[in-house]
Amino acid sequence: MAGQWLRLLAGASVPMLSLPARCDSPASPSSPSSTKERVSALLAQPPRPFSAFSPVSTWMSTKWTSFRLRTGLLSPAAVAASAVASASPAAREAPARRQKVVVVGSGWAAVSFLADLDMTRYEPVVISPRDYFTFTPLLPSVCVGTLPASACMTGVRELLVRGGVPCGSFYEGRVAEICPTEKKVRCQSTHGKAQDAREWEESYDYLVVAAGADVNTFGVPGVKENAFFVKELEDARRLRSALFDVIETASVPGVSEEEKKKLLHFVVVGAGPTGVEVAAEIDDFFQAEGATHFPQLRPLVRITVVEMLPTVLAAYNNDVQAFAKRLLEENPRVDLCLQSQVVGVGPDSVKVRTKRADGQVEEKEMPCGLLVWASGIKSPKVCLDLARKTAELREAQQQSPVILVDQQMKVRGCEGVYALGDCCRLSPPPLVQHADTLYEAATAKGAA
Amino acid sequence: MAGQWLRLLAGASVPMLSLPARCDSPASPSSPSSTKERVSALLAQPPRPFSAFSPVSTWMSTKWTSFRLRTGLLSPAAVAASAVASASPAAREAPARRQKVVVVGSGWAAVSFLADLDMTRYEPVVISPRDYFTFTPLLPSVCVGTLPASACMTGVRELLVRGGVPCGSFYEGRVAEICPTEKKVRCQSTHGKAQDAREWEESYDYLVVAAGADVNTFGVPGVKENAFFVKELEDARRLRSALFDVIETASVPGVSEEEKKKLLHFVVVGAGPTGVEVAAEIDDFFQAEGATHFPQLRPLVRITVVEMLPTVLAAYNNDVQAFAKRLLEENPRVDLCLQSQVVGVGPDSVKVRTKRADGQVEEKEMPCGLLVWASGIKSPKVCLDLARKTAELREAQQQSPVILVDQQMKVRGCEGVYALGDCCRLSPPPLVQHADTLYEAATAKGAA
Repeated sequence: MAGQWLRLLAGASVPMLSLPARCDSPASPSSPSSTKERVSALLAQPPRPFSAFSPVSTWMSTKWTSFRLRTGLLSPAAVAASAVASASPAAREAPARRQKVVVVGSGWAAVSFLADLDMTRYEPVVISPRDYFTFTPLLPSVCVGTLPASACMTGVRELLVRGGVPCGSFYEGRVAEICPTEKKVRCQSTHGKAQDAREWEESYDYLVVAAGADVNTFGVPGVKENAFFVKELEDARRLRSALFDVIETASVPGVSEEEKKKLLHFVVVGAGPTGVEVAAEIDDFFQAEGATHFPQLRPLVRITVVEMLPTVLAAYNNDVQAFAKRLLEENPRVDLCLQSQVVGVGPDSVKVRTKRADGQVEEKEMPCGLLVWASGIKSPKVCLDLARKTAELREAQQQSPVILVDQQMKVRGCEGVYALGDCCRLSPPPLVQHADTLYEAATAKGAA
Repeated sequence: MAGQWLRLLAGASVPMLSLPARCDSPASPSSPSSTKERVSALLAQPPRPFSAFSPVSTWMSTKWTSFRLRTGLLSPAAVAASAVASASPAAREAPARRQKVVVVGSGWAAVSFLADLDMTRYEPVVISPRDYFTFTPLLPSVCVGTLPASACMTGVRELLVRGGVPCGSFYEGRVAEICPTEKKVRCQSTHGKAQDAREWEESYDYLVVAAGADVNTFGVPGVKENAFFVKELEDARRLRSALFDVIETASVPGVSEEEKKKLLHFVVVGAGPTGVEVAAEIDDFFQAEGATHFPQLRPLVRITVVEMLPTVLAAYNNDVQAFAKRLLEENPRVDLCLQSQVVGVGPDSVKVRTKRADGQVEEKEMPCGLLVWASGIKSPKVCLDLARKTAELREAQQQSPVILVDQQMKVRGCEGVYALGDCCRLSPPPLVQHADTLYEAATAKGAA
């Protein structure tokens, strides 16, 4: 189930990559020696593909590029890159000084933007707590050990290289505050011990906020302490380790059938693409790789998927929803609890409140070996703060604090600030209203 | 510097693999269905190569096998496997019941033993805290990110499969006690929280102790808390993470030259093969991969190697020692502190006591960003206990508690117990006395 790919169609603000098929050739020995000269000499060079390390990513990116070509969708990251370019007064002349573009984040949005950025005119400075880009559609496979974590990683610094020469900087840290009036960001290092954190300020000509989203626990007690997430690579690693701990615990001699059943009950909260894929990967594991080494555990595995809405993959069209729902309902090892809500998570149990068909609300506690929380996302604090600031700058009232961008991905109310990806919302939203039409067009073009 | 390979020649009790060149074919559809029948049908099948997952390991194992063939050295693991076989009264007949061989550990010794074990006659039960075998010669490359951790791992359960059928069991846990008179071992699970640890007993017909060795800190204060090790894959991962933390900290704006120098001072304690290789890998990193992305840090890197003896790679012959010493001394980025001893390790400094040429002892404290402890190993507690028990059984006094084995790797004083690898010592030691002759023979055969 490659549900995450469907995000391409549904999410209006998810950027798409425009990537060349070949790698850069290394700088020739006769090329000029100073970095500045070498950067200028690279004018004609194509940007480096984002999948410098991983063969899987290369394959996936090819698929993605062809998908994008077929559907004819426009990339917001490319729009932002060209908007930054056209906003520059010296846009069509070779610049005396490259203008500094600070990019916050190293996820899909940031990486797509960097792939489209003309680094002979702009000097990117990327600030992110992670020095690598994560190929998120493969994360559920990392959770069950089908793929190693390294298959989903590409170093951000690699993406700043053109023809063997680094054309930008990367700083590992988090942006604590964006000051749009002073045109600078306040940063903090995130490595080492907390008391050793270093602070610095980074000024910019242009700012691209692509800070993504944080996990949303909706204030449910016990989630932070006991649940596992599938947001970052580190989450996937932690989940994999916990999954195999559970399997090994259930495998040692002297564990009762009852205990084994409890340990091998996996609860996935949220039937969005991430939740559905994780549930499918866990099931696949016990049917495929796990079947050889843990045949005795196979009949005891049970997966419960808890979803608040009456359907799965709610962001997608009805056919996709019905297909995924049928697959899950037909699987004898999967319990699909729709119209249900997790109200508490313990170290080895979960409390679920279900709205029954007769309208009555039922609450029950289920023992479980592992709980995966894939229920929702929220804006990071730095983005909420920026949203409030921009609303003030526009002298507007804002109901929900979210960064609003125009069709050029420019943050409304801020000069020189752009936003991309999960951390912002298009205003007015032009694509989501036509999602169904887009689905049909994509299907028709795919079939042609 | 592939120094660890030299262990093959020097260590008498380090086992060597005897591996076939091809993989098993999967069980054919017409093969008999019950596990017992299928196991019997596998009589003619060759053992599965240990490098089932990793292409690098496959390449290395081929190199190793050819090295072994050239030098003509005998594998202690193969000796033990054939000793177990010849000790069985029904050795030459197909057994009614497979005899149970409990293997403690999943390192080189255990894995080599399993590769040579006839699983149609013996049922292996492997107990180890790690469900994977680590290809240790590649660990220093994992420390600097040249290789992903997955390149050095092979699942132990894969090694128990013959023709697609698991022919043995693996339990993740540690052996707390060996009871040779009752012919059983007491085990504890190591996963999950400590309070959830489960205990069980495993009886055996034959026991193979291949528990390896633990890191020896020699009681130096601060080592456990502040140093990084290169013993297990998890150590290498931790070291890699710390190394890149240091690099990222030194890269953020506003860090003074003085601070950068302090952060980029790496201290390696112990100039054995592991220490020498780690020092070389760190240096290589800044000269190769790191040179592109951290050119500004490159001139500030300094590596200090601290060694108590007056030479490096002391276990090897004089030519090897002189070669390695010259390489390190000629490297302008490396300080080689021989006849020096670490007497204390702080969070960002190390105290070193050096014996000067004039016989005087000098003590100085050096600031450093990272300290790698590769100084020595010691027997695990379970092996020390067994050594004491066997000495009692033999009614002998034992000066240093170590498991003594005869030329068939049989533990002296215990019936049905064998030991392999770092956790035991040959008594009398036949190979070490002839190490120089062996070196010369190997060199001559290699040149021929």
